[in-house]
Amino acid sequence: MTEETLLFLEKKDFKGLREYLSAFNPADIAILLSEIPEESLTVVFRLLPKELAAETFVEMDSDEQEFLLKAFSDKEIKEVMDELYIDDTVDIIEEMPANVVRRILANTDSEMRAQINEILNYPKDSAGSIMTTEFVDLQKDMTVAAAFEKIRRVGVDKETIYTCYVIDKNRHLLGLISVKTLLLTSMKSIIGDIMETNVISVSTMQDKEEVGENFTKYGFLALPVVDNENRLVGIVTIDDAIDVIQEENTEDIEKMAAITPTDKTYMKTGILETWFKRIPWLLLLMISATFTGRIITSFENALAANIALSAFIPMLMDTGGNAGSQASVSIIRGLALNEIEFRDIFKIWGKELVVALLCGLVLGAANFGKIMLLGETGGDVATAAVVCLTLVVTIVIAKFVGCTLPLLAKRIGFDPAVMASPFITTIVDALSLLVYFNIATAMLSNV
Amino acid sequence: MTEETLLFLEKKDFKGLREYLSAFNPADIAILLSEIPEESLTVVFRLLPKELAAETFVEMDSDEQEFLLKAFSDKEIKEVMDELYIDDTVDIIEEMPANVVRRILANTDSEMRAQINEILNYPKDSAGSIMTTEFVDLQKDMTVAAAFEKIRRVGVDKETIYTCYVIDKNRHLLGLISVKTLLLTSMKSIIGDIMETNVISVSTMQDKEEVGENFTKYGFLALPVVDNENRLVGIVTIDDAIDVIQEENTEDIEKMAAITPTDKTYMKTGILETWFKRIPWLLLLMISATFTGRIITSFENALAANIALSAFIPMLMDTGGNAGSQASVSIIRGLALNEIEFRDIFKIWGKELVVALLCGLVLGAANFGKIMLLGETGGDVATAAVVCLTLVVTIVIAKFVGCTLPLLAKRIGFDPAVMASPFITTIVDALSLLVYFNIATAMLSNV
Repeated sequence: MTEETLLFLEKKDFKGLREYLSAFNPADIAILLSEIPEESLTVVFRLLPKELAAETFVEMDSDEQEFLLKAFSDKEIKEVMDELYIDDTVDIIEEMPANVVRRILANTDSEMRAQINEILNYPKDSAGSIMTTEFVDLQKDMTVAAAFEKIRRVGVDKETIYTCYVIDKNRHLLGLISVKTLLLTSMKSIIGDIMETNVISVSTMQDKEEVGENFTKYGFLALPVVDNENRLVGIVTIDDAIDVIQEENTEDIEKMAAITPTDKTYMKTGILETWFKRIPWLLLLMISATFTGRIITSFENALAANIALSAFIPMLMDTGGNAGSQASVSIIRGLALNEIEFRDIFKIWGKELVVALLCGLVLGAANFGKIMLLGETGGDVATAAVVCLTLVVTIVIAKFVGCTLPLLAKRIGFDPAVMASPFITTIVDALSLLVYFNIATAMLSNV
Repeated sequence: MTEETLLFLEKKDFKGLREYLSAFNPADIAILLSEIPEESLTVVFRLLPKELAAETFVEMDSDEQEFLLKAFSDKEIKEVMDELYIDDTVDIIEEMPANVVRRILANTDSEMRAQINEILNYPKDSAGSIMTTEFVDLQKDMTVAAAFEKIRRVGVDKETIYTCYVIDKNRHLLGLISVKTLLLTSMKSIIGDIMETNVISVSTMQDKEEVGENFTKYGFLALPVVDNENRLVGIVTIDDAIDVIQEENTEDIEKMAAITPTDKTYMKTGILETWFKRIPWLLLLMISATFTGRIITSFENALAANIALSAFIPMLMDTGGNAGSQASVSIIRGLALNEIEFRDIFKIWGKELVVALLCGLVLGAANFGKIMLLGETGGDVATAAVVCLTLVVTIVIAKFVGCTLPLLAKRIGFDPAVMASPFITTIVDALSLLVYFNIATAMLSNV
């Protein structure tokens, strides 16, 4: 697609390029625009039919949006902004420098400006900040025919028309009705008689994570957002909910890898910011690992007496860390998807204990065989036994710590995702070495 | 909600309970049914109004579905099945034992049975296996009025009516049209003139992961599924796409933690299955860690000569592992969201190198200060310098390995998600110890 576009540009066949691009989806054109040289960006964008241009603009990266907005005349800004849904406008404004924002706001009418400001005022990550104020509202004494008339009149500017919201004079949310129901009912029916009254809504200040959870759980196409007096102020549509779901997943994954989450993609995050998101955790975990070092120091004599023992330290630490991460990550994910609750803790302990013993026995046996086969302890059965026994105990401890910490974190209101590999590994390392040296001291005569 | 239900049951106030439950969403009633004693399950389920009952049935866990199906009469099975969308029926059938499946199929009509069998025949994880065959199709010479008439006639059984598909006599997909467009156009318009002809579709055999990606990228409500002659055979709706997206995320997260992914939730996975999903990776990684042990053994003399060195092994290994995971997980997630491509490798190397040096310098300096402050090397500056220099080099290596392996995996068609913490840690452990002992041997006179 990029190649063809560059060819059209080279031949200065703008009419042909316009026709060629019209056959593509806005998301694909946005990718194309990120791949052509910046000096052609404005030319190509201006070739697009008005509606396609606006739809493409929404899909573009903020760097390229900013580049275009700076190149645009006021008239062009107005043309693009008029075509956008209000929540998309707000998303764009949030990424732009102040002078660009001023030009955007100067080219929107006062009603739109008021709505933009309303959404901008909600805290980051709240339901209010991701909603749109453009929805279809109906009154309960309307007929279906009147409802269709209203949808036809106002529908073109609404992000979705498929769920319509029934409100009273004070904008209190009374119910909702889908276009499917409207289409399958007689034109004379009264909205109040056929609307769905058990409406699930979120409040403007609720975390957007809960918005995503509602969509996953109930399979809605849109979710109403109300203020604390149950007045309807906006809706969140499913396309935005999917973005939220993916962002929450990315956040959880980053936390699991000891990275402070960021809104930006990897490629768009600057070097200093990337560093800043990673260094605090590395520092914290490095200092925690000091305790593990202390344990080794305090068993210096044991290590000096039986030098073979130290060769198994990495294997014990790694296996403990891996076994612990498996348990913790399973629990973290289950908690995120609401499949696990704190009260399941006894069932979880039971399961992890048996799984740990099974894993421990297999790994212990495999390891014993390997040690004897390769003569890693110089044929010393007792040392091999110490290593394998430690392995079993380490895995049990690791699985226990791994499954318990995320549950406890959730219980006390912390984010369970932080209790993943790095944290668990640090704790399990220290515990496994303590076990190792204690077992060695107890069982080996030369230590 | 559970408490109230149990109270109604105790008072045998079934009418009251029916009314009480009617106000809830099916997803919430399904959760309730999983929390009440099994002997009340059939009673409560039978109280639900027919449509709500079917909607609730879809949301229930397969264990409870099986329990109910076994308690149902043939008439009841038929009643529930008649209300279900075909893709939901298929999902249920896939989880049921053979005798229950036979009873379900015996109570569906032959056309439905044929469609069920068609979907069941597609490979697991293919687009065909998650599609529904119930959609609205239109002809291109229809008027909008005729289209509405058809929607009104057939719409009630269709999972979505909001996107209608235009096909020719041989069922080739010609275009699509949304109900929004239909509602906002004159009743006399001809479908062929107003339909969208640039249709993005997937083929029946494509991986369902790509289905999820299409929804994330384009923001569709439904996606058409075609056979290899572009004949429309089904559609995937967005609610099922969200499930796919969440499953793919769970799979990636499990792979990152060295767990073989499973379709089941943590609580529903048996002990032996849980063990079986975890043990191969633990075994593989344990054996890989042997090499790390070998490195320690081969530098036995160095360790014996300067016993302080061994105290820093856990810290070096952990920090290297953490630094590597941060890089690998960032890249894996970027690849999964299509934000990163292989050709970005040079930019990524550049960024990770600078970030690694910045992290290394801060951690090295902090560590040096800590060692001297706590006298961990007994005031020996040279050993402290060796540890800190190793730390810097380890972090650079870790970030390099961490960002490169997922990219290479993707390049050669492997799943990048496997190249996360456990794998990276094992490799980085070995490399960091090699660096450590080599630097120590070169810089310290007593080693």
